[in-house]
Amino acid sequence: MLNGPNLNLLGVRKPEVYGRTTLADIEASLKEQAQQLGLEIVFMQSNHEGDLVDAIQQARVQGAGIIINPAAYTHTSIALHDALEAAELPVVEVHLSNIHRRESFRQHSFVSPQATAVIAGAGARGYNLALTFLAEHLAQQG
Amino acid sequence: MLNGPNLNLLGVRKPEVYGRTTLADIEASLKEQAQQLGLEIVFMQSNHEGDLVDAIQQARVQGAGIIINPAAYTHTSIALHDALEAAELPVVEVHLSNIHRRESFRQHSFVSPQATAVIAGAGARGYNLALTFLAEHLAQQG
Amino acid sequence: MLNGPNLNLLGVRKPEVYGRTTLADIEASLKEQAQQLGLEIVFMQSNHEGDLVDAIQQARVQGAGIIINPAAYTHTSIALHDALEAAELPVVEVHLSNIHRRESFRQHSFVSPQATAVIAGAGARGYNLALTFLAEHLAQQG
Amino acid sequence: MLNGPNLNLLGVRKPEVYGRTTLADIEASLKEQAQQLGLEIVFMQSNHEGDLVDAIQQARVQGAGIIINPAAYTHTSIALHDALEAAELPVVEVHLSNIHRRESFRQHSFVSPQATAVIAGAGARGYNLALTFLAEHLAQQG
Amino acid sequence: MLNGPNLNLLGVRKPEVYGRTTLADIEASLKEQAQQLGLEIVFMQSNHEGDLVDAIQQARVQGAGIIINPAAYTHTSIALHDALEAAELPVVEVHLSNIHRRESFRQHSFVSPQATAVIAGAGARGYNLALTFLAEHLAQQG
Amino acid sequence: MLNGPNLNLLGVRKPEVYGRTTLADIEASLKEQAQQLGLEIVFMQSNHEGDLVDAIQQARVQGAGIIINPAAYTHTSIALHDALEAAELPVVEVHLSNIHRRESFRQHSFVSPQATAVIAGAGARGYNLALTFLAEHLAQQG
Amino acid sequence: MLNGPNLNLLGVRKPEVYGRTTLADIEASLKEQAQQLGLEIVFMQSNHEGDLVDAIQQARVQGAGIIINPAAYTHTSIALHDALEAAELPVVEVHLSNIHRRESFRQHSFVSPQATAVIAGAGARGYNLALTFLAEHLAQQG
Amino acid sequence: MLNGPNLNLLGVRKPEVYGRTTLADIEASLKEQAQQLGLEIVFMQSNHEGDLVDAIQQARVQGAGIIINPAAYTHTSIALHDALEAAELPVVEVHLSNIHRRESFRQHSFVSPQATAVIAGAGARGYNLALTFLAEHLAQQG
Amino acid sequence: MLNGPNLNLLGVRKPEVYGRTTLADIEASLKEQAQQLGLEIVFMQSNHEGDLVDAIQQARVQGAGIIINPAAYTHTSIALHDALEAAELPVVEVHLSNIHRRESFRQHSFVSPQATAVIAGAGARGYNLALTFLAEHLAQQG
Amino acid sequence: MLNGPNLNLLGVRKPEVYGRTTLADIEASLKEQAQQLGLEIVFMQSNHEGDLVDAIQQARVQGAGIIINPAAYTHTSIALHDALEAAELPVVEVHLSNIHRRESFRQHSFVSPQATAVIAGAGARGYNLALTFLAEHLAQQG
Amino acid sequence: MLNGPNLNLLGVRKPEVYGRTTLADIEASLKEQAQQLGLEIVFMQSNHEGDLVDAIQQARVQGAGIIINPAAYTHTSIALHDALEAAELPVVEVHLSNIHRRESFRQHSFVSPQATAVIAGAGARGYNLALTFLAEHLAQQG
Amino acid sequence: MLNGPNLNLLGVRKPEVYGRTTLADIEASLKEQAQQLGLEIVFMQSNHEGDLVDAIQQARVQGAGIIINPAAYTHTSIALHDALEAAELPVVEVHLSNIHRRESFRQHSFVSPQATAVIAGAGARGYNLALTFLAEHLAQQG
Repeated sequence: MLNGPNLNLLGVRKPEVYGRTTLADIEASLKEQAQQLGLEIVFMQSNHEGDLVDAIQQARVQGAGIIINPAAYTHTSIALHDALEAAELPVVEVHLSNIHRRESFRQHSFVSPQATAVIAGAGARGYNLALTFLAEHLAQQG
Repeated sequence: MLNGPNLNLLGVRKPEVYGRTTLADIEASLKEQAQQLGLEIVFMQSNHEGDLVDAIQQARVQGAGIIINPAAYTHTSIALHDALEAAELPVVEVHLSNIHRRESFRQHSFVSPQATAVIAGAGARGYNLALTFLAEHLAQQG
Repeated sequence: MLNGPNLNLLGVRKPEVYGRTTLADIEASLKEQAQQLGLEIVFMQSNHEGDLVDAIQQARVQGAGIIINPAAYTHTSIALHDALEAAELPVVEVHLSNIHRRESFRQHSFVSPQATAVIAGAGARGYNLALTFLAEHLAQQG
Repeated sequence: MLNGPNLNLLGVRKPEVYGRTTLADIEASLKEQAQQLGLEIVFMQSNHEGDLVDAIQQARVQGAGIIINPAAYTHTSIALHDALEAAELPVVEVHLSNIHRRESFRQHSFVSPQATAVIAGAGARGYNLALTFLAEHLAQQG
Repeated sequence: MLNGPNLNLLGVRKPEVYGRTTLADIEASLKEQAQQLGLEIVFMQSNHEGDLVDAIQQARVQGAGIIINPAAYTHTSIALHDALEAAELPVVEVHLSNIHRRESFRQHSFVSPQATAVIAGAGARGYNLALTFLAEHLAQQG
Repeated sequence: MLNGPNLNLLGVRKPEVYGRTTLADIEASLKEQAQQLGLEIVFMQSNHEGDLVDAIQQARVQGAGIIINPAAYTHTSIALHDALEAAELPVVEVHLSNIHRRESFRQHSFVSPQATAVIAGAGARGYNLALTFLAEHLAQQG
Repeated sequence: MLNGPNLNLLGVRKPEVYGRTTLADIEASLKEQAQQLGLEIVFMQSNHEGDLVDAIQQARVQGAGIIINPAAYTHTSIALHDALEAAELPVVEVHLSNIHRRESFRQHSFVSPQATAVIAGAGARGYNLALTFLAEHLAQQG
Repeated sequence: MLNGPNLNLLGVRKPEVYGRTTLADIEASLKEQAQQLGLEIVFMQSNHEGDLVDAIQQARVQGAGIIINPAAYTHTSIALHDALEAAELPVVEVHLSNIHRRESFRQHSFVSPQATAVIAGAGARGYNLALTFLAEHLAQQG
Repeated sequence: MLNGPNLNLLGVRKPEVYGRTTLADIEASLKEQAQQLGLEIVFMQSNHEGDLVDAIQQARVQGAGIIINPAAYTHTSIALHDALEAAELPVVEVHLSNIHRRESFRQHSFVSPQATAVIAGAGARGYNLALTFLAEHLAQQG
Repeated sequence: MLNGPNLNLLGVRKPEVYGRTTLADIEASLKEQAQQLGLEIVFMQSNHEGDLVDAIQQARVQGAGIIINPAAYTHTSIALHDALEAAELPVVEVHLSNIHRRESFRQHSFVSPQATAVIAGAGARGYNLALTFLAEHLAQQG
Repeated sequence: MLNGPNLNLLGVRKPEVYGRTTLADIEASLKEQAQQLGLEIVFMQSNHEGDLVDAIQQARVQGAGIIINPAAYTHTSIALHDALEAAELPVVEVHLSNIHRRESFRQHSFVSPQATAVIAGAGARGYNLALTFLAEHLAQQG
Repeated sequence: MLNGPNLNLLGVRKPEVYGRTTLADIEASLKEQAQQLGLEIVFMQSNHEGDLVDAIQQARVQGAGIIINPAAYTHTSIALHDALEAAELPVVEVHLSNIHRRESFRQHSFVSPQATAVIAGAGARGYNLALTFLAEHLAQQG
């Protein structure tokens, strides 16, 4: 579970857009849901593009799937695109807000072409939906 | 629950892209899920843009929320955009495939700016995720 | 007098943009004005692009001029463009709001190149101005 | 009532496009109509962009509304845009011909976003329709 | 054999562009040619995009090939694109006039990427050429 | 009958796209068809843009119509455009493959605006259809 | 002979681009040449777009042809375009430097579509060439 | 110190964007600051593009530097660009508001490529900062 | 006071563009100016986008305003945009050179829409002007 | 004196655009004018881009200046651009018609950036004006 | 080893860009290198696009690989693209200068999509690097 | 020798595109080649844009030339552009694959304008060719 720049401010920055839930709340909620599903989940956040690339490379070796909210790097990072392509894992891209309702420079994602599924606008619940989907997807692929 | 053009061919057309589940299968699955959630769901599919506008206008009066897969009309219909705007209901836009991996003319959606949430690439499961989200969203708004 | 998709919701949808007058009010007002001018007016509204094409083809045989508010189809319908071209009648295109103040996708009209005159932003009064103009225009061409 | 560059040639330049009525004819017709409506109308024409800006600033202090045919400056003058914005009066933009049927560089208007209503293609009658609308609009706003 | 919007006006609308042959003339000529080739041909025309999608879906089950003149929907309908893709039949796209000599918005076709062959500018004879080609093509694929 | 660059490799280059028929086969087939139609046909192929211009200028004086497959020069040669315009003869543009299914730089043709008809995607049969059309067209124009 | 903004600085501004000849030198040279050709020439320069429009309107009534170097207004003035169109006189557009070698915003001219001939890059001699051409052109048209 | 169109309305037009300070207030403040710096400052405002060009040409002969707020002409005037280029003086371009936060047509400036420095968004204080900078810049250049 | 990539080379890289002052010189000058103004200033420079995001987040909690020269990240970093938006502090964007005179990819700034004021082209003095403005701005907002 | 493709048809192709003068007439007129000016002129025309490049390379060694009407290759040939650049001779580009009044693909010239002067729209007289200019230009450069 | 237009002027044209080595020097150097590698090399240069297409077709039958510097035709020739595609040989595209540092119209290459490797900016040495690579590549493929 | 993001996965990620050689293999091969050439080579790889900027700044002081494969940062990093510009060293840009055959967002390089030479598509051998070139280039510059 990877989170991009400024998401550590969640619950502070523009609560009318992203809601008041903090990233720690989301982490707790997802860990509980993962436990119920019998899955283990690793959580990280960074403001550094390179850290996110490093984390994807680590997930490539140690993980079974990736849930990622790349935040601002969604729209500028080909390095994330390449790292996800190299990882060859199922990927769910999550955005808290519906990016199609925001500035035009948020309409394009370098991450989506590497994503299995994309969920946007469902707020913090979007992470739970992503985990639900990923669990079913991994189960189905055996 | 509204479905756009050619979705009646689901399970036939390009199963490697959209999966083998038919629209009838999805309807059955969603009705069961709705029943569990204590919701009533109305299902329709049409190849006519005007029928979809009519249906949204009907949902505006009789419904509490809309799940819509506008298929090809996603990219060409301002009429759907206006109808959804007039409906003033929570809307979840669903796409079976990840449209960001397909032709460039499928990258733009006239529906997304009117959607509360967008779910793409999760296959038939995407409808279930949409219903889960909509139920929670309606519950929360009371 | 042809009206495009969602105009049946007039007086309901975004009254701050379009005013509170309903389509029935407009119809009544225009029929009265037509009677004073000694003209007969036929009124229709449809959410279906094809219905509007059919109606234009009918006007071509039975009418002397067309007043049309194509709403969302203004911006997407080449079929309306072709039908109006084939009709070879004076055409007045009416928009309730000033479309130049709204979303960028409402800046282009496929109907305008086939229109004799265009009136936008005058609210429901725009229909009356259109009828005034059309009556004088027809009288002059007499 | 403001008229932009080359409109003093009205009735001379391209009569097949703009009609044979001169600007003096229009002025006479509008003054008569204004008198009937109990309004006073001031008429000016200039080939200078700055003169039109000056006139709008004067109308801002002394007038109740503006009817403007900015002619060529429609498409190039942000100064008119700003002057109209500062005036905070109802504005009707008039074009003798339907500008959507002419060269592509006439498709964009810097004036329309500041206009209450836009009337194009109705020839000299367009000015009368504009005055009719403006009178009703002012009456309604009282 | 599918015909798009306004083609029912053939022989009336812009005869200098499309010729004076009516759609009934074309139907008769093609039925005769089909009989000679030992083929059966079904003929329809509609101003409704949805009707054309329905007809393609029907051809998918009951037909061996499709000849289509989508008229105005050529340039705006992704729904036709998807329906033809789903049909998995040989398709010949016909245009009476050479669309490359007309307005720029007629230069792009959503149908061509799904067509086996495209014939434009050959007037009503283009339908006969299309049938000749389709018959040979089907014979060869046998 | 003029053929552009690399068409001498026909039957060799990408047979899965263009078919296995050689240019000599096509020449033989067309000469036979021409004989049946009572027409004389001159056949040439060149990799030089200037040679094709020369040949069109010769056809202008000695020929009654032109069938041309300009291959790569379709998309880059204004000289061919001008030569065909000067020739003032009926022109049929032929492409073996459906160019709308290939690279984007093959979507634009400088030749089409000068062509009477365009036939694409019908393989080597496209030449025969072109000759059929040209013969009927010349007969009709008498 | 009309000269646009900043040309009064000729011989001062960027002599390496425009040469050291002043506007007075050019006026003297042209008056001499005009005398030899038996023509009368009126010379003006203004930094005001409106003045140039006024001057063209005057030339329309009193002159037989126009030589114009619109300088910066070449690229921004539709008002000049319209004034020249209304004048219905032969027009020669002159630029001292070859504008195709300068900034990209100097590549487009609103004046050229109304010009009979365009001469650029010939320095001050370009005015003489323009007068030579205009004299011959007027002589030929009688 | 040159001020473009509509700046005479300063303190009136959109005070929430530009502040309540009038142009007279700014003039007084700058004259006082200039006196302290031992500089003389000439102040002008005009709604006419040509007046601003004239003033720049005058500054070229009589001044040591230019502070200019071209307002709407920032985005449309190549004549100002050329006049400033000819002036060969240090130029500071000032905008009261941060133009990067406003309409897209205000993002491009024809004046900036001729400016030494650009200050935007600092309100009326921006003029003082400009004068501070210009004084230091002139002192440094001796 | 935040400085982006390669600004540690100031005084070395392209002195003819940026001047010979080093970043240490600027730091010393600003600290002195801050002391005079009774303000405390924190200075940092990094080549890492993430470090700048971290620093903005820190300033959000501990600072009253931000002066930032984002250098190359000006044009590519949405993460800086989002961090500044979240900070909700007055921001002054400084560029040593006038970026409007340089390569076209330096014309767009992701930072400007979040800046209170922008100062470009004033060299190292630009930082002092920024601090002057920021001090007055903070004093005024009290 | 170099002439591009299809100019051998001069006097035949579109005389209403290019005039009735043949290329032989122009050659005779120019040779006479050259004799009067004491210059020698070499005349060639080719439909082959490579021939024109060869001729420019020959002029580079044997000539003092180049007059070129590149016709269709104006708009497509970078090879002509490079050959003229290598020639390092004064170049006058001539177009019989005013290319700014024709199709949009004739608005761009690869030759103009290498031309000393450009003369368009002066018909066959344009060649004479070009020779006049070139003679004066060579005389001046000594 | 194929060389495009104007490369016969190598060592003459813009030596500061391309160096002083002539094409004959390069030929000698490469023949020596080829001998050392036990390869035979054929050298040609032409200003004619068609000659280069012919030469590629010959290489297709008689050669094992192609080194090509298409010069100006790099950016305009789809015919070269098609000929190289048909050749089905390893291709090394060489440019003497780094084309990314030159005019924008040299940024696009129709040849690169058909090249195995591209070497630009290494001057005449680039040919030797290309031969080194090609020899190793052919050896490896056996 | 600098390597950008994800190149540490070389030999793992998409071996059919990049080959099976690992970065360690390349390092060994280049160190051996460097030793033979009497050069010292420093090797680094990072997923962090800032690390690459740091390394270029270090090379600026300690190195004689730079070989760089910026991978994904090729297309997004102006910071690398600026660092290379500041370094003022010969730079060879290397890409393992021919980027002109891949996604369109890989067609543009911010690094190429700062590179002396560019080598693409030669696989791991491209590094050796780069070192060969750099050694000769440094020797020549002495």
